[in-house]
Amino acid sequence: MRKIIIDTDPGIDDAAAIAIAMFSRELDVQLITTVAGNVSLDKTTRNALRLMSFWGADVPVAAGADRPLVGPVYDAAEAHGESGMEGFDFEEITVKPLKLHAVEAMRRVLLQSDEKITLVPIGPLTNIALLFSLYPEVKEKVEEIVLMGGAFTRGNITPLAEFNIFADPEAADMVFRSGLPIVMCGLELARSALITGEMVAKIRDLNPTGQMVYSLFEHYRGGNMQSGQRMYDSTAVCYLLAPELYTVQECYVGVEVASPLTRGTTVCDLEGFWNKQPNVKVCTAIDPQGFAGLFLRSLAGAQGVPENPTAATWLHQEK
Amino acid sequence: MRKIIIDTDPGIDDAAAIAIAMFSRELDVQLITTVAGNVSLDKTTRNALRLMSFWGADVPVAAGADRPLVGPVYDAAEAHGESGMEGFDFEEITVKPLKLHAVEAMRRVLLQSDEKITLVPIGPLTNIALLFSLYPEVKEKVEEIVLMGGAFTRGNITPLAEFNIFADPEAADMVFRSGLPIVMCGLELARSALITGEMVAKIRDLNPTGQMVYSLFEHYRGGNMQSGQRMYDSTAVCYLLAPELYTVQECYVGVEVASPLTRGTTVCDLEGFWNKQPNVKVCTAIDPQGFAGLFLRSLAGAQGVPENPTAATWLHQEK
Amino acid sequence: MRKIIIDTDPGIDDAAAIAIAMFSRELDVQLITTVAGNVSLDKTTRNALRLMSFWGADVPVAAGADRPLVGPVYDAAEAHGESGMEGFDFEEITVKPLKLHAVEAMRRVLLQSDEKITLVPIGPLTNIALLFSLYPEVKEKVEEIVLMGGAFTRGNITPLAEFNIFADPEAADMVFRSGLPIVMCGLELARSALITGEMVAKIRDLNPTGQMVYSLFEHYRGGNMQSGQRMYDSTAVCYLLAPELYTVQECYVGVEVASPLTRGTTVCDLEGFWNKQPNVKVCTAIDPQGFAGLFLRSLAGAQGVPENPTAATWLHQEK
Amino acid sequence: MRKIIIDTDPGIDDAAAIAIAMFSRELDVQLITTVAGNVSLDKTTRNALRLMSFWGADVPVAAGADRPLVGPVYDAAEAHGESGMEGFDFEEITVKPLKLHAVEAMRRVLLQSDEKITLVPIGPLTNIALLFSLYPEVKEKVEEIVLMGGAFTRGNITPLAEFNIFADPEAADMVFRSGLPIVMCGLELARSALITGEMVAKIRDLNPTGQMVYSLFEHYRGGNMQSGQRMYDSTAVCYLLAPELYTVQECYVGVEVASPLTRGTTVCDLEGFWNKQPNVKVCTAIDPQGFAGLFLRSLAGAQGVPENPTAATWLHQEK
Repeated sequence: MRKIIIDTDPGIDDAAAIAIAMFSRELDVQLITTVAGNVSLDKTTRNALRLMSFWGADVPVAAGADRPLVGPVYDAAEAHGESGMEGFDFEEITVKPLKLHAVEAMRRVLLQSDEKITLVPIGPLTNIALLFSLYPEVKEKVEEIVLMGGAFTRGNITPLAEFNIFADPEAADMVFRSGLPIVMCGLELARSALITGEMVAKIRDLNPTGQMVYSLFEHYRGGNMQSGQRMYDSTAVCYLLAPELYTVQECYVGVEVASPLTRGTTVCDLEGFWNKQPNVKVCTAIDPQGFAGLFLRSLAGAQGVPENPTAATWLHQEK
Repeated sequence: MRKIIIDTDPGIDDAAAIAIAMFSRELDVQLITTVAGNVSLDKTTRNALRLMSFWGADVPVAAGADRPLVGPVYDAAEAHGESGMEGFDFEEITVKPLKLHAVEAMRRVLLQSDEKITLVPIGPLTNIALLFSLYPEVKEKVEEIVLMGGAFTRGNITPLAEFNIFADPEAADMVFRSGLPIVMCGLELARSALITGEMVAKIRDLNPTGQMVYSLFEHYRGGNMQSGQRMYDSTAVCYLLAPELYTVQECYVGVEVASPLTRGTTVCDLEGFWNKQPNVKVCTAIDPQGFAGLFLRSLAGAQGVPENPTAATWLHQEK
Repeated sequence: MRKIIIDTDPGIDDAAAIAIAMFSRELDVQLITTVAGNVSLDKTTRNALRLMSFWGADVPVAAGADRPLVGPVYDAAEAHGESGMEGFDFEEITVKPLKLHAVEAMRRVLLQSDEKITLVPIGPLTNIALLFSLYPEVKEKVEEIVLMGGAFTRGNITPLAEFNIFADPEAADMVFRSGLPIVMCGLELARSALITGEMVAKIRDLNPTGQMVYSLFEHYRGGNMQSGQRMYDSTAVCYLLAPELYTVQECYVGVEVASPLTRGTTVCDLEGFWNKQPNVKVCTAIDPQGFAGLFLRSLAGAQGVPENPTAATWLHQEK
Repeated sequence: MRKIIIDTDPGIDDAAAIAIAMFSRELDVQLITTVAGNVSLDKTTRNALRLMSFWGADVPVAAGADRPLVGPVYDAAEAHGESGMEGFDFEEITVKPLKLHAVEAMRRVLLQSDEKITLVPIGPLTNIALLFSLYPEVKEKVEEIVLMGGAFTRGNITPLAEFNIFADPEAADMVFRSGLPIVMCGLELARSALITGEMVAKIRDLNPTGQMVYSLFEHYRGGNMQSGQRMYDSTAVCYLLAPELYTVQECYVGVEVASPLTRGTTVCDLEGFWNKQPNVKVCTAIDPQGFAGLFLRSLAGAQGVPENPTAATWLHQEK
């Protein structure tokens, strides 16, 4: 099993991705860390705890940064509803967050592990950037960073910038310069990573997790599911499970931090205009059928209590 | 007939566009101005004169800026061959350039005309920016600016910048802020504005102009014409002839001048993220068959001496 | 006699500088060109014409750029009064401006001259930048550029930017990169180039020009002349007459154009931190007594009609 | 006694400042945190430990960031000698650094304290920025930030940037936007905060600390002490002891992060050009005699073991 840490800002889309990771027999989720993004840190942390409670899972949750490194918080609550995960009636939260900051929790998990661990950031990269700033020594315990974020054509929050990167461009810049292997699952994948209306309807009837995921999507779409639903964060988790579904090109990627017009843009030199040392594997395409099939099979397997054998439950004792 | 001024840096691709404009019965070319771009100003001016000599045309040619406003000259000679128009054996140049700077020539043509005139820049925008800086009063004689340049997805000289804009971003910025109506025919059109290998072969046999255009393309492609040839500058000229072939969206476009990573990018807010006042009509798509048909018909009509009844031949007397 | 062209935005301070240049027996003013700056182009041109009429001088005046190259016009009218030269009752304007743009006029004067000519810009550098963009060939006729503008410590329009540079940073950047010899008389000189209250009173009684200059200053200061008056533009003209009064250091100077916080700052590497090729002689200090003496003697000599033997009066016939 | 935390990159100049703070009866040093700056983190930490060992002091030392947030490490070792504190033969280090990161250590000290604590950063601001990013809740325990850094006229590492800010501009930007009260003791103070050659000689004979400080300065100056020695970091510590010696102006200060020409400049709007909300008290002048006297008296009192009653020695037990 591959050890991973998920850094997330749930978020409906994150919920589906987390579900897949939590129940996968190939992934061993060590820790979930939260960051401000789709909604505020309070809410993303609460949502992560709701998911863990819903599943009865014991993967610990640590809250991280409540704002980007430099710029102001971008409030996306309008798009994501009051709580960020509206539409499903979660029961009481039964698990507690760690007392440790996400950065501290990640550090300890990384240092304690014998094997390298893969980081899976599916929100703004603030926590990851802070981790590497405070504890550069942990980098050697990081296997790879497989992230959802960025775009090589157009954006979804400004003409050229994708939300997760735009929400903290300085952090993204730091991570992209970190020297670690990075896989970027950007906006372009989501256009192909479409769960059709028909498939969405099937999800509802799979099991309680399917019911939950369906309800969140349905609420988000105001009931209109016919045109299907694009998946964003799940493309990062699915890359871990089936990289063969992805077309990948290694190239230099710079993150624009200087100019308001283009701030947060991931400038991907796919054509090699600049002859610069590649630092990112950019996923340029995904097999739509393959992805949809994997997505559905993954949710179909989301039965019972998720098993993540080496989840860092010992962190609850740390201070 | 619609009066136009073509500002150009020929260039093979420019030659085809100029041919169409010169022979069109709907367009009355007043003046051709040259600018450094694909190759140096000396060469672009020489190439414009070669074309006029080849056709026996009396449209005057005025040389303009030999470098961008602020940055260094970008030398694209490697891509465009020694002269910028290799592959056809042009006879001696029989016409002389004006003694006036392109900016002076444009000014006089605009002020002398009773009607408004459309500017058709198909190279870097240096001359147009200088014209508006020196003589803002001429703006009221400009009908519209229909330009080839920019992109809303990816670039051809850096990951996000198109060559004509990248070659003088400050000039482009000035033109895009000018307040005049602007139609932007960018890189995306060229992907659809494809003249297939079969069509290219037909062009050769049309007439001397077709022969010339064919020879230039064939040399440029090293003889390999099977995959066809994309047209860039011709999309701006053809817009004047058949705007109904184009899908157009009016939106705010900003030109990035500040940051090296994204310098020269035309940031097109097609989705209205910023709610800013539209300043450009961006052509987002073109009818491929319609374009190819128009292109071929236009070249087929390139017989004899081109008629441009009100060409500003009187400029030869000015100093 | 040294041939000069004055590019100016009068302006009270400009008026004193122009007076000194016009009456100096060492300077032969060829042409006066105007630019938007302290007040709008209409007003700066009108003020230049007023001065020529007042003196009965035949140095021609050509209006230039009415706005900066890229950014918006900065309106300093509040500081400079309605007309920009309030406080003296000028008679009717008896001379006409040239029909030529300042850039055209400068070009012709430069090309027609056998000797090199010194440019003395004491306003924003828009005209000079445009001149070099349109007609780079004139550079070889430029002896030197002795300008008032910039600062190496603090600014007068933002914390670090001086007005003339801030009003058109892109133009300044272009001029500072032109490769021509540049002498920069910046804000720091003005702190020493002080005409005391006592001296100012003397100026009034010198002659009609002294009376005029006095009246402008008095109005500008609301009658409070005791603390004296700092001279800005005159430091550039006086440099031509007595460079030995100036401490000069050659160094690299870059003009900040990219960032709002520092836009328009002349970054002067006096210490050689960057080891870059020097492009500017920065005047770092001026002899206060020497300057004040020269200033007074110069105005004392402003009698009768100023002689500028080779003033380009022939330009009135050009079109 | 006023509780303080010193964040530092010793450094010779830092050593004098730390000496003053450690022995002052008005200051209660809780913690010393180190950061990369004058020399690498390894060395700054080692130097802080050397000082504590030299004095037999029990103020704990925690190592922090070994590089700036975003840009590359600027290596100033050439200016500061191999170790950063050459010239005195320190004995063996007898104290150990904390196992905690500086950020963690600062957080715990702040949260554990009943009163607010003043932060005294005299190196790059990386640690402080990280502290506020990870733990914004500690801000309410911060009394004030009294820092050495920045300049309002000219710089010492680029024409306009001071070293501590230039070494991590993004961190400085974050701290200056933190909303906390900030006192900036910049480069201009050092020009007045001069310890003359005569005074330096006295320092040698005061006591072991004086001897140590003298030796460091002498080595740094290659034995040439006649022209005296400017004090930088000590101006921040002395502000805490005698603010009445300082001329202070509250104003808006922005930190330039975007442009290479001006990167790291603290743009101080002392004149109120921008009418922006003040965020910093800028020290614009210091009483030279007052400062020198205070400096000497402080070192004269550096006898025996420094008393810092509430130093956070308990941190040694934390993990």
